Amino acid sequence: MNAEIIAVGSEMLTPERLDTNSLWLTNELNDLGVEVIAKHIVGDQRERLAGEIRRAMDNAEIVIVSGGLGPTEDDVTRDSAALALGRAQAYIEEIARGIEARFARMKRIMPETNRRQAMVIAGAEILFNDRGTAPGQWIPFENGVVTLLPGPPYELKSMFTRECLPRLRGLVPPTVIRTLTMRTTGMSEAALDEAISPIYSSYKKITTTVLAHNSDIQIHFRARCPSDAEANALLEQIRPKIETALGDFIYSRNADPLEVVVGRKLQAAGATLSVAESATGGGLADRISSVPGSSAWFLGGMVTYSRRLKVELLGIPADLIDRCGPVSSEVTAAMATAARARTGATWSIAVTGNAGPTTDGDSAGLGDFYVGIAGPAETTVTHRVWPSPDRMRVRAFAAQLALDLLNRKLGR
Amino acid sequence: MNAEIIAVGSEMLTPERLDTNSLWLTNELNDLGVEVIAKHIVGDQRERLAGEIRRAMDNAEIVIVSGGLGPTEDDVTRDSAALALGRAQAYIEEIARGIEARFARMKRIMPETNRRQAMVIAGAEILFNDRGTAPGQWIPFENGVVTLLPGPPYELKSMFTRECLPRLRGLVPPTVIRTLTMRTTGMSEAALDEAISPIYSSYKKITTTVLAHNSDIQIHFRARCPSDAEANALLEQIRPKIETALGDFIYSRNADPLEVVVGRKLQAAGATLSVAESATGGGLADRISSVPGSSAWFLGGMVTYSRRLKVELLGIPADLIDRCGPVSSEVTAAMATAARARTGATWSIAVTGNAGPTTDGDSAGLGDFYVGIAGPAETTVTHRVWPSPDRMRVRAFAAQLALDLLNRKLGR
Repeated sequence: MNAEIIAVGSEMLTPERLDTNSLWLTNELNDLGVEVIAKHIVGDQRERLAGEIRRAMDNAEIVIVSGGLGPTEDDVTRDSAALALGRAQAYIEEIARGIEARFARMKRIMPETNRRQAMVIAGAEILFNDRGTAPGQWIPFENGVVTLLPGPPYELKSMFTRECLPRLRGLVPPTVIRTLTMRTTGMSEAALDEAISPIYSSYKKITTTVLAHNSDIQIHFRARCPSDAEANALLEQIRPKIETALGDFIYSRNADPLEVVVGRKLQAAGATLSVAESATGGGLADRISSVPGSSAWFLGGMVTYSRRLKVELLGIPADLIDRCGPVSSEVTAAMATAARARTGATWSIAVTGNAGPTTDGDSAGLGDFYVGIAGPAETTVTHRVWPSPDRMRVRAFAAQLALDLLNRKLGR
Repeated sequence: MNAEIIAVGSEMLTPERLDTNSLWLTNELNDLGVEVIAKHIVGDQRERLAGEIRRAMDNAEIVIVSGGLGPTEDDVTRDSAALALGRAQAYIEEIARGIEARFARMKRIMPETNRRQAMVIAGAEILFNDRGTAPGQWIPFENGVVTLLPGPPYELKSMFTRECLPRLRGLVPPTVIRTLTMRTTGMSEAALDEAISPIYSSYKKITTTVLAHNSDIQIHFRARCPSDAEANALLEQIRPKIETALGDFIYSRNADPLEVVVGRKLQAAGATLSVAESATGGGLADRISSVPGSSAWFLGGMVTYSRRLKVELLGIPADLIDRCGPVSSEVTAAMATAARARTGATWSIAVTGNAGPTTDGDSAGLGDFYVGIAGPAETTVTHRVWPSPDRMRVRAFAAQLALDLLNRKLGR
């Protein structure tokens, strides 16, 4: 079965914005055994969008339209789909009341324009939006179905998963796709691919995808078979070979990111963690605390971005900073040790560095950073240099290395 | 004048790949005053691509097709364009000799399949490829032009710049595009649009785009005129009307985000900032310190994610937390005041809240959060509720509100 995806919104026709919803949707559709045969991005133009939907209906059984369901004048998707299908729309009071209630919960009054979102095309099933005001629509036609979804990824993903997937499973003949995911850190994408491509390229029924983001790499092995047993058996064949090739660069045998893996180990050990951040400026704490339930192991810590707070909050001797420089092995070790002492955590991580565009003192160069880990037995410091002076990348890489180092100390 | 862009290649219909050539092309076209009205991504299917090109020719004067000009069986762009235009193709010996020479320079023999790249559509001008084997084609038709370009960005950019830009300048009447950007926070997209659409919709030469991300909204007004002076005059006409309509919801009169605006004001006043974060877990500090040069105004602060660190690092009385709950106006005010006292900053921001999935005590519900701002004159606390219990959104919204409140206190 085939699908076409139409993303609606003039902002995606500017030089700055891409439609990324379609990547996620494509993955979901592929998992069902549905092929995406074309994608379109069109502006907020009623007739042009109607023409696009009409054409997609001629080519594919599944037409997914995302965006343009908002309350404003330039949200044309409802009208365009009605035009393409040659059907009328009706105002559904119940939807309007639901939107009104949502505004009321936020202690606001619904603008009149939001009533547009209560218009529904004849023959459509309404798709509930649990994360925004715009309801979606599921509109069967002679050869398939047109689905209207909201544009914001956060709303679209929830609606597609809850409302569309079960309906699509009813339409699409069963194919089983099983995925094995691994995550690594500390290895370049090229080196990783060189290590595993001789393995995966000999499995014709497995599609392998390598996705690198900063120094974090996700590898997906997707086996597509007529039965569950076959798919699982295939993945169990490839798994040990990949594990041997990548060794302890693998930190996760599913999609869990480092902060989740570390958190799980800490929680299992009844241990706690605190941080003392300079270069990462809160980004490491942000990542650790982004994990739901992280209050079980994460105590918090200090963002000692300035020299003053290094001295006052952590008690780092001013003359140590003067002597060694704020970005140094000595100061990083002292920060980690002090953070551990002052917060009473089992483990503490300290990060210093020069993310750029300028350096903090001249003890270290641009792109230099240090990670200190204080634990029950000792405090260790690791020094790295990020070759290109990109502020956001240096910060992200430092946070990643910090979690990687702690993860290795925590063992299996 | 309008353009449509068609990217050809089945690999861009997988979950991993996006067409990014179109962003670069869009920028080049906009600079000429050409609007991109739709983008398409299609697989390597002769008839389907022909249909797509045909349709684009009906809608736009400029049709750019990228990719599918290679030598293999699944490179269908030449055939599809010939089909769409209803024209024959001819083998041009001179092109074949050029490709052969290129192979010879690399000390290789041209595979026979490469002769396909020497097929040219009747009426086409040949576009020289200085970085690969596939020549492009410039094919005028009754209402405009179809251009075939190679897919690799490195080849496409060179060919477009050398061969297409001069030709397009001959086609397109001279136009200037000037952009006015504003950013707002604290207003819903619908309310904002209700306020400004009566204004912008009366300016036919201005294209308005509203981009919302969490509670941060960017508005772009793009004026397209025959001359620079006219475009600027038009924007200066609309500017005061929009400013009146949106008032102090506007925090930026360019693309600068809140953390940059706040930082600039702090620096101008010689003031400093520190934070005491609970709910946002480092995310607020991360945002503030993401600004290059932020060490001039940002001292750092505490991530008091646990009750223990609220007591030990900030000195919040344990009985205040017991009495009022960790997520409360009282504790938030105490955190902000203590952070200011302990860091010596001019301003301190404290954030507490329940981002979910569970609440920290029962003093407040899921989605409840408090922002406290301690300044030279007073400490104030603001309470908000985020209606849907999404952890990342509550955290992002709380950080945004915190910066918004501080920005308002800092004045113009």
